[in-house]
Amino acid sequence: MERKEKVIVVLAIVASAAAGILHFMGANAVLGFTVTAVALALLAVLVGDATEQLGSRMGPGATGILQSGLGNLPELFIAIFALRAGLDHVVQAALIGSILGNSLLVFGVALFLGGLKNGTQKFNSEPPRTIAVLMLLAVAALIFPTLTKYLHTPAEPYIDNLDIFVAIVLLIVFVASTYFSIKGDPAVSAVSSEENHVRWSLKLTLGVLACAAVGAAFVSDWFVEALQPAMAALGISEAFAGLVIVAIAGNAIENVVGIQLAWRNQADYAVSVILNSSLQIALGLFPILLLLSFFIGGSVLTFVLTPLLVVALALAAIVCAFIVFDGESIWLEGVALIGLYCIIAAAFWWG
Amino acid sequence: MERKEKVIVVLAIVASAAAGILHFMGANAVLGFTVTAVALALLAVLVGDATEQLGSRMGPGATGILQSGLGNLPELFIAIFALRAGLDHVVQAALIGSILGNSLLVFGVALFLGGLKNGTQKFNSEPPRTIAVLMLLAVAALIFPTLTKYLHTPAEPYIDNLDIFVAIVLLIVFVASTYFSIKGDPAVSAVSSEENHVRWSLKLTLGVLACAAVGAAFVSDWFVEALQPAMAALGISEAFAGLVIVAIAGNAIENVVGIQLAWRNQADYAVSVILNSSLQIALGLFPILLLLSFFIGGSVLTFVLTPLLVVALALAAIVCAFIVFDGESIWLEGVALIGLYCIIAAAFWWG
Amino acid sequence: MERKEKVIVVLAIVASAAAGILHFMGANAVLGFTVTAVALALLAVLVGDATEQLGSRMGPGATGILQSGLGNLPELFIAIFALRAGLDHVVQAALIGSILGNSLLVFGVALFLGGLKNGTQKFNSEPPRTIAVLMLLAVAALIFPTLTKYLHTPAEPYIDNLDIFVAIVLLIVFVASTYFSIKGDPAVSAVSSEENHVRWSLKLTLGVLACAAVGAAFVSDWFVEALQPAMAALGISEAFAGLVIVAIAGNAIENVVGIQLAWRNQADYAVSVILNSSLQIALGLFPILLLLSFFIGGSVLTFVLTPLLVVALALAAIVCAFIVFDGESIWLEGVALIGLYCIIAAAFWWG
Repeated sequence: MERKEKVIVVLAIVASAAAGILHFMGANAVLGFTVTAVALALLAVLVGDATEQLGSRMGPGATGILQSGLGNLPELFIAIFALRAGLDHVVQAALIGSILGNSLLVFGVALFLGGLKNGTQKFNSEPPRTIAVLMLLAVAALIFPTLTKYLHTPAEPYIDNLDIFVAIVLLIVFVASTYFSIKGDPAVSAVSSEENHVRWSLKLTLGVLACAAVGAAFVSDWFVEALQPAMAALGISEAFAGLVIVAIAGNAIENVVGIQLAWRNQADYAVSVILNSSLQIALGLFPILLLLSFFIGGSVLTFVLTPLLVVALALAAIVCAFIVFDGESIWLEGVALIGLYCIIAAAFWWG
Repeated sequence: MERKEKVIVVLAIVASAAAGILHFMGANAVLGFTVTAVALALLAVLVGDATEQLGSRMGPGATGILQSGLGNLPELFIAIFALRAGLDHVVQAALIGSILGNSLLVFGVALFLGGLKNGTQKFNSEPPRTIAVLMLLAVAALIFPTLTKYLHTPAEPYIDNLDIFVAIVLLIVFVASTYFSIKGDPAVSAVSSEENHVRWSLKLTLGVLACAAVGAAFVSDWFVEALQPAMAALGISEAFAGLVIVAIAGNAIENVVGIQLAWRNQADYAVSVILNSSLQIALGLFPILLLLSFFIGGSVLTFVLTPLLVVALALAAIVCAFIVFDGESIWLEGVALIGLYCIIAAAFWWG
Repeated sequence: MERKEKVIVVLAIVASAAAGILHFMGANAVLGFTVTAVALALLAVLVGDATEQLGSRMGPGATGILQSGLGNLPELFIAIFALRAGLDHVVQAALIGSILGNSLLVFGVALFLGGLKNGTQKFNSEPPRTIAVLMLLAVAALIFPTLTKYLHTPAEPYIDNLDIFVAIVLLIVFVASTYFSIKGDPAVSAVSSEENHVRWSLKLTLGVLACAAVGAAFVSDWFVEALQPAMAALGISEAFAGLVIVAIAGNAIENVVGIQLAWRNQADYAVSVILNSSLQIALGLFPILLLLSFFIGGSVLTFVLTPLLVVALALAAIVCAFIVFDGESIWLEGVALIGLYCIIAAAFWWG
């Protein structure tokens, strides 16, 4: 284990312990929420590192599956606890917020900083374009339950069936796309092309993975419990909390990776990582949580969003696709993407 | 006439005769509907073959006009009989369903099977992109009557005028695009680039064309009459029947051609054929039927669709355009397209 | 001063004088409106020429700023007088109409005529694509206030705040993009790449600029006063007047430039000029007027459009982007663009 990794382990333990103490002391909600968010982010890094180490023993294909399965583990825990606490609107907003945050804010920051440092950036290879097309198709599929509900079409009373049907279709595409990255098809595998060296012993790897996962499960619970009082104390609406705060907190570290790659002028890889993160939520995490929500008690998740979110999602997918298809970017496009994200956030800030 | 063609002639005669017998016997509605659908598909092949033979005597330009004019003859007959039977909603749904079926289902199956067999497929030439752009423009034009109606704009009472205006504009673009393919401009003529050899005598050609056309007229009538009882017997809604069943039955054979081309790794040509088929409906068949419907009695056709169909149409046009502009496809994109089609169909299945 | 320029000066003086006489005589409204429109167009040419001459003394960067600042001076005057006359709906419609007119009608005419004369036109360089992407982002940002209003989201009571926030974000992007063109970055500077020779003395330049600007201020006032009686006399609705008539009158001459460039087969440059004109309105003129409208008295401008205009704007941005990304165009695409513009205009003609 490298020095940097050891520091993260120590920090994660300290933050998790602090989060636990604040939780059981019933401390100030905003403080508790902040500390649990930091702890969760650090645990997410450990889960990610351990998954990568496990994958490096198993070939690139298996790594893809592992990353798909374990990479979103912390988000999965948060979502499950939040659903059991009846916070389905927050979960839904956080899922869409993660997609919008990746596709607009993180992508924008990556283009802005990468462009400032490296001038015009090129990402004219196939994988980013394939990801952008799949994202568009996923968003198009996600739109129909909301339309069915708000346009009061004859299928409205069967909205649960439609939700389940959409979830199954999305999961089939998710499995197919995971199969692609396992086979290492050059058209989508840029994401897993980075070299991973076995650096941890198997025992260490499994130990870190197990501890970080169990830790993430506990801290997620505290995070969800701290969420509502913290938002109430700050006077923030549930929609904004889910869409912006939970979404950014839940993806903080993995977003930094994409931005770092752009900064190092690996624009192709950066774009793939950032947009793939959105795609995994739309094709994988959201439909799995929707199906799970019928079994775990608490509130049931639905693809029926507010119309404003649907439009935001569609615009984000279209705008991203054009930027990706352009194959070149300048920091100005990054500024415009960040601006669009801020406007969407502002539209949910008031009220 | 080749052996294969003779078989189709015989099958078409048998199926048409069976359809007639079932019609006048007042047989089981579902059986009658199925047999007339098969007969229509076979007659459509004969009309297509005869048109091609006629065209091979007249140069590629005239073939383009002939194919535009005669290729949609069976659909035209079905639509006219259905309008006279007051089934304007079915006609409208079938037209939009043909566009969606081509752009999502058939395109998706072509990418899926072509990609499975041939790996990554390339179609980076100009004709598919031009067709995709024209399709987008046609869909954009088609959207305004629906918006005028559902947004209750001041033009709402003049919706008939707007419909007629839109129809005339679309037909002008249709005539212009036919003129293009006549002139054999390389930018759009991929569709007519296949070699056609004169194999039938002129007499045979005209005879087959006349018989198949007359047959198609009769069978279309029986098809329309069998439609409603068959749907009632199967418990299928009018919207779903038009959108999915009539649309697929009406285009079955021509769709197979596009898929075959993709299978044989002629991706450029396949994409042009499949999307051109959508474009001809949007620019040609729909506006012609709308104008005709004011004269033929029965119900009047309108461009005012349900909002859900408008969104489906817009999404299909945008998604297709991105896939075409990508210039490369993998079978995964085919799976996602088929999935999107299934979700749209599902949204019309219930209720 | 060249002979052609002298003719324009004389014509501008004659037309402005005639406009003044008709105004103070209280002549026929339609005649007065037409003459003031012609006078305004000629004054706009003079402002443009003087700005170019001033810029040619100051390097390409400063020219960019000057053109951004002074190029829209006549539109700015019209808009301010119209806002003070309480015609905020006309101003709004004229701004959106200018964007649609540029992106669909002028772009369409340029592709049509350029394609007829020069065959397939290529514009595969980066600047048009960057402009198309920024236009999409600007339109996406513009959409949210309207959605907030019409979907009755919780932010609806705070719509003024959202308007101001959107205006500030757009202006930040505007300043950033102006900074880009000042730095002469090759990715966006095609627009300022034309050679400008110093031909006028500084005194003449400043004199023409001052006189034309003052003239434009007066004539704008008369134009706005003649607008309502002229529309009433012609039986044209306020929405159509703003969207089509004021928009075309206000941009007549600059549009001719883009079309001329396409005709001379400088397709790249033509596309940049035409779409940049739309972009400057969306990123610069509209938000500046919105912020100004809080101070100048009369009615306050808002980004809340009618839903039909929002859809038209979004479709125009998407369709344009695809045509630009295609990198090739044929006159057929021009015909389709013009057709789409006519359909949008027709949807506002009735009622």
